[in-house]
Order: sequence, then structure tokens, then C-alpha cells
Amino acid sequence: MPEIFDETFPEELTETGSARRRMMLMGGSAIAATAATRLLPESARAAVLGTAEQPIDFLFAIYPNGTLLDFAGPNEILSRIPNTKVRFASPEGGLVTLEKGVVFGPTEKLSDIDKVDVICVPGALNLSAMMKPEILGHVRRLSETARYVTSVCTGSIILAASGVLKGRRSACHWAFLNVLKDYGAIPDPARIVKDGRFMSGGGVTAGIDFGLAIAAELRGAQAAQEVQLLVQYDPQPPFHAGNPAEAPPAVRDVVYKKLPGSQNGLMRPVL
Amino acid sequence: MPEIFDETFPEELTETGSARRRMMLMGGSAIAATAATRLLPESARAAVLGTAEQPIDFLFAIYPNGTLLDFAGPNEILSRIPNTKVRFASPEGGLVTLEKGVVFGPTEKLSDIDKVDVICVPGALNLSAMMKPEILGHVRRLSETARYVTSVCTGSIILAASGVLKGRRSACHWAFLNVLKDYGAIPDPARIVKDGRFMSGGGVTAGIDFGLAIAAELRGAQAAQEVQLLVQYDPQPPFHAGNPAEAPPAVRDVVYKKLPGSQNGLMRPVL
Repeated sequence: MPEIFDETFPEELTETGSARRRMMLMGGSAIAATAATRLLPESARAAVLGTAEQPIDFLFAIYPNGTLLDFAGPNEILSRIPNTKVRFASPEGGLVTLEKGVVFGPTEKLSDIDKVDVICVPGALNLSAMMKPEILGHVRRLSETARYVTSVCTGSIILAASGVLKGRRSACHWAFLNVLKDYGAIPDPARIVKDGRFMSGGGVTAGIDFGLAIAAELRGAQAAQEVQLLVQYDPQPPFHAGNPAEAPPAVRDVVYKKLPGSQNGLMRPVL
Repeated sequence: MPEIFDETFPEELTETGSARRRMMLMGGSAIAATAATRLLPESARAAVLGTAEQPIDFLFAIYPNGTLLDFAGPNEILSRIPNTKVRFASPEGGLVTLEKGVVFGPTEKLSDIDKVDVICVPGALNLSAMMKPEILGHVRRLSETARYVTSVCTGSIILAASGVLKGRRSACHWAFLNVLKDYGAIPDPARIVKDGRFMSGGGVTAGIDFGLAIAAELRGAQAAQEVQLLVQYDPQPPFHAGNPAEAPPAVRDVVYKKLPGSQNGLMRPVL
């Protein structure tokens, strides 16, 4: 079957100057929506992973009870940027039963993966499938050789538990943010956080913003923006309730009550 | 396994007044981000599907080569609102191989579904699996008895082809919007469109905004906003490139060139 959006940018591959032109500045604080208008500094240009002719292996490490949208969001971006292979792996391989009983796959077995360019660990409320020494060992092993180590939502807690985020700033779902401290990571409430080769997004839907940011890091801002237009990412939430500071008090208070500790970013995932 | 976000709002179930209080006005034009601050008119209250004690059957009609995020976005919202059962169906039932070769399921068989409260048809670049008289017949049959008939992205083209959108305004992915005219529907470029019991979202990522809007329609704005906070939907795209009017010309022109007809909303899906 033809896939119209696949390989749509062949002649863009060598236009690295243009592709990098609008790449945003990221320093670990929130990425301003106006960042796209800034010029790319030389230091950030250096971060682009070579030319688009060099394939990139991007791995989502998913697992039973994981949250679908945590990786479905960034996958929609990453699977459309040039010359990038998106792979999925899980502790047991094969099809994975996610939160709410939905099944996704296929996945490779995490222990079978030798090395990837980017590892991304998405989140869940129930992290138990990943919080085992052997599985955390594979996360650590792959993170040590990856050029970028990334996460969405509470996936950063898995990365932190594997030991690779010590002293590193990281994002997390707002309700769980301070749990990162338990593992020596530095909680950062920004929606997208970059600290060296570590990059992370906040809760669930932040995966789309993160996806665009890592796409720009890997292939330049031109390529990232082309995909943004393809997936019509021009968000217009009908309500202002996406973070505790902005949500109406009646909304925030109900959620605080239902998620113990969330008010202080200390909600606990199931480990 | 405990699922912390499940059934988190039991005492909210009878607070229908509160739940409906902030429900937004929707008239087919774009929903303003400020809509949440408006009071709910009586006519809109009537649209709330009874009390939260009455279960709602929400059906995603998915299919081979479909785009994952089109339904993964709204599913993340709908699967968390009170007393709402999210079901998935497909032409053949079972596991479905989507765009890019990812597998999702399980699904019921479309022909086995008797009746649902809400039908939602997500989109794809390749609609061929749905554009068969027998399958369109099931879409039409379920749409005739559903209280809400909805779509994301090019899913509206499937609804239109089934004959149920004649004379109705509908959203669609920007590049394909005017294809709706072929089936007697009225293209509306808004991100979320409501025309009576027909509700639709624009391209791919619009499914999240649509999901919040239909959640508010079904369960009131309080419930919708609680889920918005849970999934931290406080979008901060790193670039302004999500629609053709806003994208940098160099981005827009590349995408126009790659998607023939897209400049006039006349890109053709694979039928």
C-alpha cells in the first residue's frame, strides 16, 4: 500500500543549513513557544546527528501496563522524519498489553537489542514491569552507549532507577516529579528538559512536544516542522486545565485528592 | 494490577450541576480557548448524555493502515472519563495492522456491533479498508442510531462516504478538507467542529482537543478538565508550524509540493 507521508522529503536531505536554521535553543528550562524564531547557535548545530544520510535507530522501550499515548505521540513524529528507524522493545518481546487492556506491538526483546542511537522510555502509572534489576540493567546498558537518553512522563523514573540520571535534570509527569529525587536525579518542572544528552518530556501529552524537540535535535528544525504540519499540531485545548497552576481550583483539588502526594509532585507509581 | 487513574471520580458522578457548569459553547466554528469560562446555556446542558450513572458506549472504528495517534489521542481522554466504556471495532475484528506496521487491538468485528452511543472514525492516508460498500454500510447503520457521530482527521471522509454527512459541516485534516465536498458534506477548517450530533476534529493531533470536547459533551467540563490535568495537556509546541497559515513558508511549500492538492485541501487519500 502506498504511504504518502513516507519518505516525502528526499531532496531535503542535503539541505542541512536550511534544516538546522530554526532549530531551537534548549537549556533545560521550558522551551518557549517563540524559540523557533531564534537563530541556531553553532553549539546547537553540532548536536545534529550528522547528516540525514546516516540512519538513526530510535528505540521505544515499552512494557506491560504502559500508557499508550506516552509513546504514540512522539512515535507519530519520529516515524515520519527522514531516515529514522523507530523500533519497539519490551521485557519479553512480542505483543504488549498496555494500560486499559489495549495490545500493541510487535516488539523486540529488550535483551536482544545491542545498541541504539536514541532510547526513549515512556511512562505509566504502573512501572512494575520495568523496575526489576535485570530489566533496569538493559535500560542502563543501552543508555550508556546511546547518543540520546530520553523519556516521556514517568518513564524518567525508570531511567532514574536504572542509575543513569544521577545529577541530571529531568522532566516527569507533574504529580510524580519529585520522586526523581529518590534516585539522585534533579526534578525540572519544564515540559521539555534537555541536560546534555538527556532529554525528557513531562506528563503523557508532553510526548508530542518532546517528539518535535528530539526530531529537531536529530534532523533539524525544518524536518521537525514539516512533520508538525503533516500532523497538524496546532493545539487548541478547549479548556485551560493542563497543569496544576492553571487548572481551575475545583478541578485541581479533585485530582489532588485522588492522587495522594500529587500536590507536592510525590504521587507514587506502582513499583 | 491497580490502575490509579481508573474510577478516580466516584463522588463526582452525581455532581452533574458542577460537572456541566463549565461546559463550553460549541457552534461549529473553532472553540475558543476561553470557552471554558463561559456559563453553560440550557440548550447545551440538554446535550449532556443523562447522568454519569448511565454508562456510555464509545466506539472507535479502526482499520488496517489507520493512523495510531488519530485514536490514541482521544482514547487517552475517553478511557479516563467516568462510566464510559471505550470499545474498538474493525472490519475483520482481532488485531489490526496500522500505518507503519504497528499492531493494535484487540478489536471487535464491526458487523457484530449492534448499537453504540458514540461512534468515532479516526483517519489515515489509506482509507481503502473502510471504503467498501459493506463496511460503509456498517458505519452508516451505527451512525443512524448513535447519539453522537464523530471523527478525527480523514475519518470524516469515511463518514461522508457512508452518506451520513450530507449537508453537515465537518472538520478534516487540512490537506484533505475539500474532499468532503465530493460527498455532500460542508468542509469546516476549524480544529473542532460540532453540527448537531456530528462532531469532528482536524488532522491527527486534533484528536486530543476533540477528545476533551466530546468528553465535556458527554460528562461535563469538570470531568473533561480533570482528565486534561491527569494527562498534563498543556501543549507547548517548540515551533509554530501546525497549520499552513502559520508554518514558515519554506516548511509549508515543501509539504505542499509533497502532497499534491494539499494547498487547496484537495490532497487525495488512498481509496
